[in-house]
Amino acid sequence: MTSFMEVLSGALPTNAILTGDAAAPYLTDWMGELKGEALAVLRPSTAQEVSRIVTICRDAGVVIVPQGGNTGLVGAATPVTKRAAVVVQLGRMNRIRRVDARDNAATVEAGCVLATLQAAAEAEDRLFPLSLGSEGSAQIGGLIATNAGGTMALRWGMMRDLVLGLEVVLPDGRIWSDLSSLRKRNLGIDPKHLFIGAEGTTGIVTAAVLKLVPRPAARATAWLALSRLEAGPEFLSLALQHAGGAVDACELIPRQGLSFASAHVDGAQSPLDPTPDWAVLMEISGPDAEHLQETLMSLLEVAMDRDLVCDGVVAASEGQRRDLWFLREAIVEGQRLAGFQIKHDIAVPVAEVPEFIRVASDRVSKLDAHVLVSAFGHLGDGNIHFNLSPSASADPAELSKCVYGTCLEFGGTISAEHGLGRKKKKIAKDLQAVQTCPFEIESLLDPQRILNPLSES
Amino acid sequence: MTSFMEVLSGALPTNAILTGDAAAPYLTDWMGELKGEALAVLRPSTAQEVSRIVTICRDAGVVIVPQGGNTGLVGAATPVTKRAAVVVQLGRMNRIRRVDARDNAATVEAGCVLATLQAAAEAEDRLFPLSLGSEGSAQIGGLIATNAGGTMALRWGMMRDLVLGLEVVLPDGRIWSDLSSLRKRNLGIDPKHLFIGAEGTTGIVTAAVLKLVPRPAARATAWLALSRLEAGPEFLSLALQHAGGAVDACELIPRQGLSFASAHVDGAQSPLDPTPDWAVLMEISGPDAEHLQETLMSLLEVAMDRDLVCDGVVAASEGQRRDLWFLREAIVEGQRLAGFQIKHDIAVPVAEVPEFIRVASDRVSKLDAHVLVSAFGHLGDGNIHFNLSPSASADPAELSKCVYGTCLEFGGTISAEHGLGRKKKKIAKDLQAVQTCPFEIESLLDPQRILNPLSES
Repeated sequence: MTSFMEVLSGALPTNAILTGDAAAPYLTDWMGELKGEALAVLRPSTAQEVSRIVTICRDAGVVIVPQGGNTGLVGAATPVTKRAAVVVQLGRMNRIRRVDARDNAATVEAGCVLATLQAAAEAEDRLFPLSLGSEGSAQIGGLIATNAGGTMALRWGMMRDLVLGLEVVLPDGRIWSDLSSLRKRNLGIDPKHLFIGAEGTTGIVTAAVLKLVPRPAARATAWLALSRLEAGPEFLSLALQHAGGAVDACELIPRQGLSFASAHVDGAQSPLDPTPDWAVLMEISGPDAEHLQETLMSLLEVAMDRDLVCDGVVAASEGQRRDLWFLREAIVEGQRLAGFQIKHDIAVPVAEVPEFIRVASDRVSKLDAHVLVSAFGHLGDGNIHFNLSPSASADPAELSKCVYGTCLEFGGTISAEHGLGRKKKKIAKDLQAVQTCPFEIESLLDPQRILNPLSES
Repeated sequence: MTSFMEVLSGALPTNAILTGDAAAPYLTDWMGELKGEALAVLRPSTAQEVSRIVTICRDAGVVIVPQGGNTGLVGAATPVTKRAAVVVQLGRMNRIRRVDARDNAATVEAGCVLATLQAAAEAEDRLFPLSLGSEGSAQIGGLIATNAGGTMALRWGMMRDLVLGLEVVLPDGRIWSDLSSLRKRNLGIDPKHLFIGAEGTTGIVTAAVLKLVPRPAARATAWLALSRLEAGPEFLSLALQHAGGAVDACELIPRQGLSFASAHVDGAQSPLDPTPDWAVLMEISGPDAEHLQETLMSLLEVAMDRDLVCDGVVAASEGQRRDLWFLREAIVEGQRLAGFQIKHDIAVPVAEVPEFIRVASDRVSKLDAHVLVSAFGHLGDGNIHFNLSPSASADPAELSKCVYGTCLEFGGTISAEHGLGRKKKKIAKDLQAVQTCPFEIESLLDPQRILNPLSES
């Protein structure tokens, strides 16, 4: 009788099958919190090879965990499973097949790194408007499977909004190819949405057609001290009204986040002295640099008149702009370097952000008097990364339960842009926090549940 | 034994059940092309009543055809069915439950008319950015079920992009309520997309939370003569680059469309003399009137320099702006009044629009030397209404086959924004024109297929 591994070896090139030490880097998640096991890590080069893998695994009852750049934060790509599993890592399918400036569309394979696509779009005077901290490693397939968000979702939407067409290997091994760039196409239920955000539970994305937009000729970027946290949503609302559709990003920056950054990241210093309790990093972009600057200055004038903003700096060069964004990302890196932390990727209605932060901060402080709270992120979407650096004696599970419970009281969600993966699936179930999908879609489409059965961890 | 109608009478108020003459207006489609039959037309007032209807129909094996404003063009809401059917008309569920300007969201019932929501948003200094010819009658539930498009989809997307939350009665009678306004919420497969664009085959939408945007303080509108049809996509591309995110609409206007309008619609006259073969109606909007005018004028200067545009008028007042949009809509009305027509709602990649129009026009003229072609619509999305007024001796089916076949050769779709409904379902099957959905979702979710079985006509 031929073993599973023998069948795989017959179906794939030798260098597409990793085991032992070569496989190890793919078995642990980015945070180093989950450690999985797999019969092999498979690195196919074509959709046909992916299809063969799925067919072989289906016949053998082996679970498949798809993986992109392995930058996810919720363990969706780590093979912690009850049944025998393989990891299918898409990194070798990394070609940009086409960037069509006339059609404002790019066709890319699943393993293409986000930053590579951003650069390819820019070379054609276009922008691929998804931007996030891990863009140097995150891959398109994973970004689609997790419906990634990031700093520009306020203006351009999440990954879902940027996907025009998909190629997917289905749970039964069929290749479903629909690499269309059409903007409007009403043919009943749109199958794309069975895969976007599905965390690899219904199919393995192998390629996609993505939307591009004109590359803005200019940007204007400001780091602004809010007069008080409550001014944040009002400032955002004013900015959206004042700057029309030009607001790309509006990020909330807490003083604690800057403390982490300046303590642990070289060159990370608050641009404002004194460092305000709360700041926003706002960026607008458009075709006309002079008009952008005028828009920004008149917005600031109104915001200061209304006592929403009390101090600020405006980037005077691309270098200064990059420094401000470096500082924004240093908040994440600084807290990581500071030691153990508990991340919470939540969202509440935008107007509720200040009150949510106050109430949740009070409550976690009551559970752990020395907890440090860095509540930062995408004010524009109500998506706050409510990250805690607890004291050694604190109970992380209790703190998380408190944060998620408070979030739900505010009409929020326990997952905004990271997904549920393996880590949050259990939490969601315990808290009954997730609006139940009215159908068991995964089981209807994949009765054997061989594709990334997240609940079986 | 209690009859089906007796059970219904026991479950619904008397005035919610229409039969005979009272039911007749709901049994024919807007175009007057399809005539259906139903045991009754039901007009529920609550989701609970809809739920009761679904349960009763499921137990009796009676088909349900959901209906909104009955403005659809493909017969999805007309009860032409092989099995006994009822129509569920949502028009009595027409409340706007909430317009929340702070949260940029509105909660509305399915039967709310689009224009009513537009007005309610405007009263709160917000815009609901969906606009189409039938907005005075079309209802929100139908607009969601058909994923409506319209003139502003270029900037704001289709209905799918504007839906934040839904309340739906499922095929088994359960009410699934998810009326959330959150912007980001990644919890696996997003169930909304099982219903949006599904033409009532998977559930009956009873309410929705919809996205609002800041109301633009100003608009600039121009009617421009293209130097030639081929200049259209290039002008669009220039406008998108030049005006940043401010382009709301870019509509293609053919001379033949204006001929229909001026011949049959009072007050419809071309604003340009001579009337160009091809024009575009472009609108940009934003917070600053002066800047918009400057943007528009400098765009026109470049477009004329590059010989993309050779003549034009700019609306100098809100009245003149309305006149231009009136003329745009008069193209549709004029052709309807001119007699029998064959509508084709197709899309091709934007850059292919000119060549598609030329080739398709040539081909239909070879089949019918006297056919009049009005190819107008949403250049910005590549969505052209390629509408024919054929001579009496022509074969409509042959003409349509030619148009759809040509569209497919250009990588296009035979349905862009109207959907397939009953009318196009057959055509799609005959032409094998539709990328097959890889799963039989409707049957998986509704094994009895009592919800709008479009293929059973």
